[in-house]
Amino acid sequence: MSEEPLVNPEVLEMVGDWRGYVEAKLGFRNHWYPIRFSSELNEGALLVVELLGEKLLLKRIDGKVYAMRDRCLHRGVPLSRKPDCYTKDTITCWYHGYTYRFQTGELANILAVPDSRLCGRRKIQTYPCEEAKGLIFVFLGDEHEVHPLSKDVPPGFLDEDLMVLGKHRVVDSNWRLGCENGFDALHIFIHKDSTLRHFREFNFPIGHTPLPGAVTCIEEEDGPKGVEDDFSKHHPIWDGEIDGQIVVKGPKFDPKKGTSASIGTSIWLPGVLKVESFPVPGITQFEWYVPLDEGRHLYVQTLGQACTTDEERSDFANKFETHWKPHGLDGFNADDIWAREVTQPFYDDDYGWVDEMLCEPDSTILEWRRLAARHGRGIQTKKDLR
Amino acid sequence: MSEEPLVNPEVLEMVGDWRGYVEAKLGFRNHWYPIRFSSELNEGALLVVELLGEKLLLKRIDGKVYAMRDRCLHRGVPLSRKPDCYTKDTITCWYHGYTYRFQTGELANILAVPDSRLCGRRKIQTYPCEEAKGLIFVFLGDEHEVHPLSKDVPPGFLDEDLMVLGKHRVVDSNWRLGCENGFDALHIFIHKDSTLRHFREFNFPIGHTPLPGAVTCIEEEDGPKGVEDDFSKHHPIWDGEIDGQIVVKGPKFDPKKGTSASIGTSIWLPGVLKVESFPVPGITQFEWYVPLDEGRHLYVQTLGQACTTDEERSDFANKFETHWKPHGLDGFNADDIWAREVTQPFYDDDYGWVDEMLCEPDSTILEWRRLAARHGRGIQTKKDLR
Amino acid sequence: MSEEPLVNPEVLEMVGDWRGYVEAKLGFRNHWYPIRFSSELNEGALLVVELLGEKLLLKRIDGKVYAMRDRCLHRGVPLSRKPDCYTKDTITCWYHGYTYRFQTGELANILAVPDSRLCGRRKIQTYPCEEAKGLIFVFLGDEHEVHPLSKDVPPGFLDEDLMVLGKHRVVDSNWRLGCENGFDALHIFIHKDSTLRHFREFNFPIGHTPLPGAVTCIEEEDGPKGVEDDFSKHHPIWDGEIDGQIVVKGPKFDPKKGTSASIGTSIWLPGVLKVESFPVPGITQFEWYVPLDEGRHLYVQTLGQACTTDEERSDFANKFETHWKPHGLDGFNADDIWAREVTQPFYDDDYGWVDEMLCEPDSTILEWRRLAARHGRGIQTKKDLR
Repeated sequence: MSEEPLVNPEVLEMVGDWRGYVEAKLGFRNHWYPIRFSSELNEGALLVVELLGEKLLLKRIDGKVYAMRDRCLHRGVPLSRKPDCYTKDTITCWYHGYTYRFQTGELANILAVPDSRLCGRRKIQTYPCEEAKGLIFVFLGDEHEVHPLSKDVPPGFLDEDLMVLGKHRVVDSNWRLGCENGFDALHIFIHKDSTLRHFREFNFPIGHTPLPGAVTCIEEEDGPKGVEDDFSKHHPIWDGEIDGQIVVKGPKFDPKKGTSASIGTSIWLPGVLKVESFPVPGITQFEWYVPLDEGRHLYVQTLGQACTTDEERSDFANKFETHWKPHGLDGFNADDIWAREVTQPFYDDDYGWVDEMLCEPDSTILEWRRLAARHGRGIQTKKDLR
Repeated sequence: MSEEPLVNPEVLEMVGDWRGYVEAKLGFRNHWYPIRFSSELNEGALLVVELLGEKLLLKRIDGKVYAMRDRCLHRGVPLSRKPDCYTKDTITCWYHGYTYRFQTGELANILAVPDSRLCGRRKIQTYPCEEAKGLIFVFLGDEHEVHPLSKDVPPGFLDEDLMVLGKHRVVDSNWRLGCENGFDALHIFIHKDSTLRHFREFNFPIGHTPLPGAVTCIEEEDGPKGVEDDFSKHHPIWDGEIDGQIVVKGPKFDPKKGTSASIGTSIWLPGVLKVESFPVPGITQFEWYVPLDEGRHLYVQTLGQACTTDEERSDFANKFETHWKPHGLDGFNADDIWAREVTQPFYDDDYGWVDEMLCEPDSTILEWRRLAARHGRGIQTKKDLR
Repeated sequence: MSEEPLVNPEVLEMVGDWRGYVEAKLGFRNHWYPIRFSSELNEGALLVVELLGEKLLLKRIDGKVYAMRDRCLHRGVPLSRKPDCYTKDTITCWYHGYTYRFQTGELANILAVPDSRLCGRRKIQTYPCEEAKGLIFVFLGDEHEVHPLSKDVPPGFLDEDLMVLGKHRVVDSNWRLGCENGFDALHIFIHKDSTLRHFREFNFPIGHTPLPGAVTCIEEEDGPKGVEDDFSKHHPIWDGEIDGQIVVKGPKFDPKKGTSASIGTSIWLPGVLKVESFPVPGITQFEWYVPLDEGRHLYVQTLGQACTTDEERSDFANKFETHWKPHGLDGFNADDIWAREVTQPFYDDDYGWVDEMLCEPDSTILEWRRLAARHGRGIQTKKDLR
């Protein structure tokens, strides 16, 4: 038995104006999160997923996706351990016959106690679902707090002609280390040997520092909340020196041939990165760091390209399979996954948030932490998991 | 290092008149528990067993069984890790020669320090043992609290002509989930596909609810304390309906051929169930949920049949091996074992006791919890394990 | 997240005048510890080691050994996970290019942020290193507390003509159980069947108790601090009796042939045992119990013999490989390693220190605990690990 708090209270006292971000170890409640691709859930099929520490059942009924806590109200067992779906709309607990309606969560019946006063009066928790760009989004939060999906995705993601393809995998780090790894302009240092280079002539400094004006907070009432970092307003470093000796060089191409790896990145609530012109101009990488529990996140990696004809769509799908998935999402981003997982132990006991020693370019990360603390719509707590 | 309490104090405050039951996570102290079959411990042999969180050494000396804590007083090592039994009555610690007498626990000698003032003045903890119906029972408690075994077994179990056969296995759930799974009249729902049906024409409703008068608390001063549930005073449900449609039916036979699965169950302190007329009329199932530690119990499953002749005994033994063990104790009860293990995580942090949502027929379970809290002779605590 | 103290405060209140010893679960800070043999670290090579709960990087540069915390100041990642050593004297963090100088720990550069104000102003923790008798010693403590190595090794260990050979292995017990197992005169009981006997006619009582005058505390200002136990002032027991019957006998030889297994032992801060005339007269065993973390120690086993000629050295090296390593350090001491690991669980939650039941000869152990509490130069705490 344990009463220990989710986050070390001593640390919370020390972090000042981004306290809410440190509190959100399990993620921000009352936001939309992509949890699977639409193609992974066929009509009538059932999926068990995790989200912000909760176990959820997803079912597609008459085309629409529903999400319900995967835990019987009666004795707390997972319904999914032996899913008895006697009708299209319901699931019956294998243990004592408690029967729930997917659309509402309502306890419709207890098979052996049809006249129980509980029937029709109790509900299992359900969450709104929406599908967009081939992803299933779940609003993990309270019904009266539902906001439109457009406020929880980066600008441009819902553009009508944008075709989105992607993959997902589980990463053994807290979701925030995902956000910070992605948005961090200095971490380019770990990608120096990426095979992605074979497909494009990158200008690839060993790091770059934002100059005044590079970073902008976007906080419009009705839109998504995020921080943008404009790489054209950065000071790049091409040569790494130690004791006056150049020890590492970033590749720099003829400006007519080479381009920057990206022209800028931005990070948005509830934890999604947008990388413009990446892996090549014309494509944008959108990637989510979806909290699964305290120590793991679902890394949802997508690429979006504007396509108006079937030929363009087919060409993008083809290039995705042969180039961008193997060399970008798998190869290039494998460096990032590894870095997040190796960083995790330092933050395990929360002291990392105060013991870290940030340097000047990390000011972009601090902007993000503060913005997230200001605009996160709620902190997921241990109590929410009960 | 940890000072955390065994049971969440916040939960204890909330459970009202069965608080003692929630406190008894490690079981009730000062009761008799069956721990092995007599046939498993030959003359002179040594066994290591667990009981209520303690590790015990069992030895049979001149026919009688003795139980002693398996931990040297000196530096706390398990005597059993290298058992040096130089004489029939003693065990010598392999590390420094501390020598204990099984019958009393007395520190008889320290081999290399024969004149130590500790000799004859210190004792390792021992517990009374008794054998009955082929089982070894240990009284896990304090000597001045010993009660007769007959107060800790269900009525009828010690009947002279009752022949008892059985088996045991470790289940990964707290002992109370064993008790409640067994005594719960609704859980019959999980047995709908049991192969045991091949051997008997059961009337097997999908559930049944006790009517007034079905449940009786037995609390006589000198007898065992338990709760009886008379199935003849139950309202059975044969058809499970969802939205007006019958989705599952319980088998119901011609009353001349079929019989109820059981005519009633009862649950007794310190955690033993009696199922009458089961698996067939003429046989009674007695099963114990013996606490091993917080998360595991020993499931001691026995069947008793009145036998007065050798032929009857031989016939019962034969049927036990060919019918009741494979299809009852192994097959039918495997459903129960699985259900308890899947339920355990919800109760791991104790909040399950207050977050569960019981329905009307579960009033029998509440009777049991209250009775156990009233009559349990002591709570096993972490301090008892030191 | 956890705030739990390293040692149970309730236990600390109960142990009286050796409280500091119980507090030193992670070892005493500000002492010299042998961590590897010199032959294990070649010029330019890098090793990762643990010491008192900290992870350290060792590197040999121009013949000299340096030790540095293996954790980047920036985001806390282990530098060793992908060691980028662009120059002989430095290591660069693989994640963002923070570059440290081994000799001082100084943050020499951040490759992509060469003008960061942190450069030259921040240091990673380093520790002094010395080599002696073929061992690499690290002073795990604060620079202003450094004492000479000679105060942290047993008398005689640094003698000019002493040749030292040895091995090391990780043992799954706290370091103090190593010290107490080695210094404990009674534990000889576990060695009764050692194959080491084939190489020497030991007089091997089953135990021996110090008489008045056997035990001496050595606490001179400028020397090592330790407790000596003179076996010539012990009362040996040759026959182990139970109920008047001799059940075990210690081998006792003709005094002209046989010798005592050892003429005495002593234990020294920060946790090193000296066993004189062992495994044979003319050789001394020195063994360290180096704290790795709360539950493991590095068992550094060495034998020293005075050698003045190459022939003597070659002969000792030969005998070490054929006799003393296989039958002493491996065979005989395997009993000790096993005993420490089996004892560990009793002390896991610290209650062992107050629940143990010591006997008269254990007074030598109490002397050691008190001396260690008096002279340990600092307690390693969880805060030191941050």
